[in-house]
Amino acid sequence: MRQNQYNNRLHYPAYFDKICSAEKAALLIDNKNVVGVSGFTKAGDSKAVLPAFAARAAKENLQITLISGASLGYNIDGLLAKNKALIKRMPFQMDKELRDSINSGKVLYIDQHLSQTAEFLAKKQLPPVDIAIIEASKIDKNGYIVPTTSVGNSTTLAKMANKIIIEINTFFPDNLESIFDIYSPPETNEPRPIDITTPESKIGNNFIPLDPQKVMAIVFTNHPDEPANVKEPDQKPFRIADHLLNFLKSEVKKDRLPIQLKPIQVGIGKIANAVLSRFMESSFADLTMYSEVLQDSTFELMDAGKLSYASATSITLSKDCRTKFFKNFDQYKDKIILRPQNISNSPEVIRRLEIISINTAIEIDIYGNVNSSHIGGNKIMNGIGGSGDFARNALLSIFVCPSTSKNHTLSHIVPMVTHVDNTEHDVDIIVTEVGLADLRGLAPRERATSIINNCIHPLYKKQMLQYYQEALQHGGHTPHLLSKAFSWHIHYNEKGTMLFTNYSA
Amino acid sequence: MRQNQYNNRLHYPAYFDKICSAEKAALLIDNKNVVGVSGFTKAGDSKAVLPAFAARAAKENLQITLISGASLGYNIDGLLAKNKALIKRMPFQMDKELRDSINSGKVLYIDQHLSQTAEFLAKKQLPPVDIAIIEASKIDKNGYIVPTTSVGNSTTLAKMANKIIIEINTFFPDNLESIFDIYSPPETNEPRPIDITTPESKIGNNFIPLDPQKVMAIVFTNHPDEPANVKEPDQKPFRIADHLLNFLKSEVKKDRLPIQLKPIQVGIGKIANAVLSRFMESSFADLTMYSEVLQDSTFELMDAGKLSYASATSITLSKDCRTKFFKNFDQYKDKIILRPQNISNSPEVIRRLEIISINTAIEIDIYGNVNSSHIGGNKIMNGIGGSGDFARNALLSIFVCPSTSKNHTLSHIVPMVTHVDNTEHDVDIIVTEVGLADLRGLAPRERATSIINNCIHPLYKKQMLQYYQEALQHGGHTPHLLSKAFSWHIHYNEKGTMLFTNYSA
Repeated sequence: MRQNQYNNRLHYPAYFDKICSAEKAALLIDNKNVVGVSGFTKAGDSKAVLPAFAARAAKENLQITLISGASLGYNIDGLLAKNKALIKRMPFQMDKELRDSINSGKVLYIDQHLSQTAEFLAKKQLPPVDIAIIEASKIDKNGYIVPTTSVGNSTTLAKMANKIIIEINTFFPDNLESIFDIYSPPETNEPRPIDITTPESKIGNNFIPLDPQKVMAIVFTNHPDEPANVKEPDQKPFRIADHLLNFLKSEVKKDRLPIQLKPIQVGIGKIANAVLSRFMESSFADLTMYSEVLQDSTFELMDAGKLSYASATSITLSKDCRTKFFKNFDQYKDKIILRPQNISNSPEVIRRLEIISINTAIEIDIYGNVNSSHIGGNKIMNGIGGSGDFARNALLSIFVCPSTSKNHTLSHIVPMVTHVDNTEHDVDIIVTEVGLADLRGLAPRERATSIINNCIHPLYKKQMLQYYQEALQHGGHTPHLLSKAFSWHIHYNEKGTMLFTNYSA
Repeated sequence: MRQNQYNNRLHYPAYFDKICSAEKAALLIDNKNVVGVSGFTKAGDSKAVLPAFAARAAKENLQITLISGASLGYNIDGLLAKNKALIKRMPFQMDKELRDSINSGKVLYIDQHLSQTAEFLAKKQLPPVDIAIIEASKIDKNGYIVPTTSVGNSTTLAKMANKIIIEINTFFPDNLESIFDIYSPPETNEPRPIDITTPESKIGNNFIPLDPQKVMAIVFTNHPDEPANVKEPDQKPFRIADHLLNFLKSEVKKDRLPIQLKPIQVGIGKIANAVLSRFMESSFADLTMYSEVLQDSTFELMDAGKLSYASATSITLSKDCRTKFFKNFDQYKDKIILRPQNISNSPEVIRRLEIISINTAIEIDIYGNVNSSHIGGNKIMNGIGGSGDFARNALLSIFVCPSTSKNHTLSHIVPMVTHVDNTEHDVDIIVTEVGLADLRGLAPRERATSIINNCIHPLYKKQMLQYYQEALQHGGHTPHLLSKAFSWHIHYNEKGTMLFTNYSA
């Protein structure tokens, strides 16, 4: 009976006795446990057990340390924070309520390079994982997991955890295995290279291996991922995208890039979507991606015949695009691949493949240092994510942001960033809607001139030149005035604008 | 005649006609040329042609862009700066006179991750190299170079340059080839992994290949490298070393490290020497190194039977140690290897080998961000060097510094570093003579508590706690007060001490 019922999803009979409700599975989580969950950019996360735990935690005053791939969907992070169920969270989040709890000191947060969490766990640099909750589309005949829409840290979490709960989500098709390439380093004395030499390279399995003895509960769900909230970009992102594409075209013309470019990594958000949509209208062909997330624009580029292959660790789509994706799965399945995030973001592979990396900055200073994570020097927004993995090792490390926001009261180009996530050593190109600064081969003083001339908003240019000229008088390889380096931020906190009155338009 | 004279050094007769004086070779360098030179930590640099060019440049007002491996010996950088012969310098320097010229804006300087220069050149992200000057101990029968005491960027410089000058330095023995492993990525469409899986892995040749047509001049010299200036460490470095070795012992006890540890990288200087000398007296055995530079202490550890293998890109020794090294070359030659610096510092290899990385910081802030390069936020000291290559990808990223210097007027632990080279994401362990902070698995507020409790000098502790408590009142993931973050540095500039009077002892 049961066997028939779960015939196409659960091919390992020894798990039949483990089937239970989410509430019952959530009882396996003890107070102070370190819990690992699947999920990356709202894809492939726990849709039943973690919410059930959040409800239980509120009643029983339970608290856990939570380790995911990256951000989770359905505000589960916010619910956990609201219910005071989190001691510590890593390696990434983008939930408003959790963010507030972190900034007020109620939840401890470790913001990590997304490539590194799995290695920290595997090499015992973090506390042991008590229990892992992994979403699956299917369990194979060995009891192994076929994931849903993300791989993230699930491979390592399943390997390192003492206990495992599997959520089999029947919303997803049961034939997803062909898109996975799940590589685990071999357990030998001598480490091996990660033998990926193109975005298409397959070096692993299409399942997450695990010790079936550790599986304590199987929960069935039928629930889509929270859909991506894709906003139509306004003019600014398109102007940024135009500068960027013109630059890439000129690199091709100068014979520094081939017409199919190099594999592209692009973050999520409005600017990323604008960039990818400009590729649609461009003369570029046979593009490839080696990125973190496959988004709507990835599939639009494929439909348009512009993108021939895309590798990532998750698929995060709008509702409409998801429908299209699953309906036409056969036409996409040989063109995409999902890998563990320590492989999608591997420094080794990123450097080898000569990635073109495009990430969004919160603010950038005149020497090209990038703040990817903090507001006002102290409050976290989301986290560094994979920006550092890619920026350090990419062939071209590109950071984009609007020159100003909030009705020009905030300049995103500042004298000195209040928090550094990516140092000037790791930043080649900066683009705002004003223009593009090519910093390759430039010393700090040249970088400052290029950024001021090309990227800063005209409203702030005079004010910045005054800072820079005054700093120059004090000399130095990287001229700065410590007493005024943060004056724009302090002015914003006090007056609601970074623009000093003597320079207002 | 000639053939006999150079019999054991110059095995490629087509070069005989190219033999000339350093002065004549220096005439090949044109004004505004981009010049590449061998040399890394004063080892294997140009001892005749670059000085001859410096003299000529002063007379003829010539200026060049100079790209080396790392620092050069005999104050040649200073001489070039003094003679106004440098437009731009990269990727590293440690010369007092050049430093002053950089800080006053007379010379432009690009301070790069030492792994990256070769790739920037090979992928045309930097201007073309007009001429390369490479020191050789021998020329083989194909006209290829057997280097002397460093490999550095010489392989790439020889490959990318339009013209090549070779300095054959007969001071060095003519049998050095067995210590080199010179790997160049194959020229294929599909990139390949760097197949190094232990410090001993050999994957290349023992010569630098080049196009003999490009060789324009051969200059003979007979001159040692400038000897390393090894200072006897005082008590502080030994206290730092003791904390560090106790930590490593406890990691072994906790089964997180084997007794032979993992390959060690260690920077140069007093603290590094103290650390290596403490290993001599320790119970550790069968150590290996995968580092940038082999120093006196490397050979002392080998002599003591503690160190079984060492890989680097240069050998920089005191005069006495050099004598010992060459005298007993046969006993060392199978235990050491010199590689190109893009391989010794390769992120791919560093992550794979799980390096224990030990580097010196100029200052460290309470969240663990590290300034490796700047004084007072604007003046360069040396540069980031290889610290970023290792810190980002090491298994254990350790930064060391004294807690104070200059009679306690400077605290090296500060509220916020004035320049960030290595972000808190890349820093696991901090050690001062006061103690050790293990930051693994800690969120920023926990990191601050650990650093304040373990690393800051007692004189500065109350002052730091006041800053931190006040910052905490303003909240945030990374509590800071922008108006006071640099107040210690500003106080130092104004009063000659970071210690505020209300806290003076």
